[in-house]
Amino acid sequence: MMIPPAFMRGMADAAAAETLPRFRRPGRVDNKLSSGFDPVTEADRAAERAIRALIAQTFPEHGIHGEEFGLEREDSDHRWIIDPIDGTRAFISGLPLWGTLVGLTVGGRAVAGMMSQPFTGELFYAVGDGARYEGPGGARSLRVRDTTALADATLCTTTPALFDPLRRAAYDRVEAAVCLPRYGTDCYAYAMLAAGQVDLVIESGLNPYDIVALIPVVEQAGGVITTWAGGRAENGGDIIAAATPALHEKAMALLR
Amino acid sequence: MMIPPAFMRGMADAAAAETLPRFRRPGRVDNKLSSGFDPVTEADRAAERAIRALIAQTFPEHGIHGEEFGLEREDSDHRWIIDPIDGTRAFISGLPLWGTLVGLTVGGRAVAGMMSQPFTGELFYAVGDGARYEGPGGARSLRVRDTTALADATLCTTTPALFDPLRRAAYDRVEAAVCLPRYGTDCYAYAMLAAGQVDLVIESGLNPYDIVALIPVVEQAGGVITTWAGGRAENGGDIIAAATPALHEKAMALLR
Repeated sequence: MMIPPAFMRGMADAAAAETLPRFRRPGRVDNKLSSGFDPVTEADRAAERAIRALIAQTFPEHGIHGEEFGLEREDSDHRWIIDPIDGTRAFISGLPLWGTLVGLTVGGRAVAGMMSQPFTGELFYAVGDGARYEGPGGARSLRVRDTTALADATLCTTTPALFDPLRRAAYDRVEAAVCLPRYGTDCYAYAMLAAGQVDLVIESGLNPYDIVALIPVVEQAGGVITTWAGGRAENGGDIIAAATPALHEKAMALLR
Repeated sequence: MMIPPAFMRGMADAAAAETLPRFRRPGRVDNKLSSGFDPVTEADRAAERAIRALIAQTFPEHGIHGEEFGLEREDSDHRWIIDPIDGTRAFISGLPLWGTLVGLTVGGRAVAGMMSQPFTGELFYAVGDGARYEGPGGARSLRVRDTTALADATLCTTTPALFDPLRRAAYDRVEAAVCLPRYGTDCYAYAMLAAGQVDLVIESGLNPYDIVALIPVVEQAGGVITTWAGGRAENGGDIIAAATPALHEKAMALLR
């Protein structure tokens, strides 16, 4: 089954109608966890509701798993995974690097996905036949660049503070070997990797809804995305994405 | 002398005509310093040329100091300070957080300034009677928010790696006290502070052209911007910007 690009666009638009009017507006921030700072805004919830409604209308037999409202139809082989606002901290800081993530797994494997950034008007998506971009400057295919040496690579991570000490040491080995490290990138990093602008993304402690939507975008742009152990990335955890298999292998050697 | 907003818009547009077509395109990157990674693209040079031409045409008696082409008419009391692309690393990574900075000093004091981000279509500027925004969603005044407690504050810095060990320890004391630290923000952080989205920006080792344009934007939005020693920020160096005097004082106490 091929998901129509128009369906991806429709989900992006429905979410944008909820998120964008609340971006850079004063708003209540909930503290979802008793420990730590994990803000959730009404924008999250309203956007997930809008996306769920579209999926239920178009694919009523499919399962849905969203960050805000949990899992429904869990026995379906097809499952949509939603993070209405990935990068909530960027969102509440006014920075346009957050995104709406929606991915589709079939039998547990990510086959289609999208990341939309409504403030910049950008949509990065993959539905099975290559990754594509729509945004300022028009529509085009997404293709990773051909970086194979760590010394030539740009590496993104949201913040090194997210790694525990052992993982931080592993990450630091890679950071020390690359040309340019870049922080604060959230889901936008994977989009830039697919677009051939950066070469590596390394993160830790991800949830499935943080990453499932981005796997098809990276893979169908020609990139590699796995766990640090080299397995499939659908379950989240420790994730590495690379522009080329050779670069992936070199970074993996330093992570181990 | 009041600088017309239309002149700020004109400089932003002239720079955008040179930077935007080169953003996210493959391009040669020079290594300006023999040590370290300091990329400079043709976009930098072309944008500075375009801005210099507009200033020379409109204010032929004014001095100009740009990152790429140095100082001219150094005896003038009025001096325009240009950084055609602040955040070159963001630019070459495809991230829309770089900006074109142009500030005007009179007798060494920053009185007007602008930051433009052409990919998002945003202009943040101040010409002496308040700070203003033009961009998606229209035009509006910029106003800092009223945060006075570190525990409520969002703190931005481009990367902690830019601090030397002593300054890093000082920065870390502030970071440990705030609600949310955010990296990778470049000049965009000061714009978000003026817009009431974040509360603190702390950086080290800035050049005058990194900061002069942003001083009037922060100050005329109601914020405070000084060196870590509490002096005027026009000469760059170690810089702290805060949403309120009370927050500035509390962060300064931890930096000392």
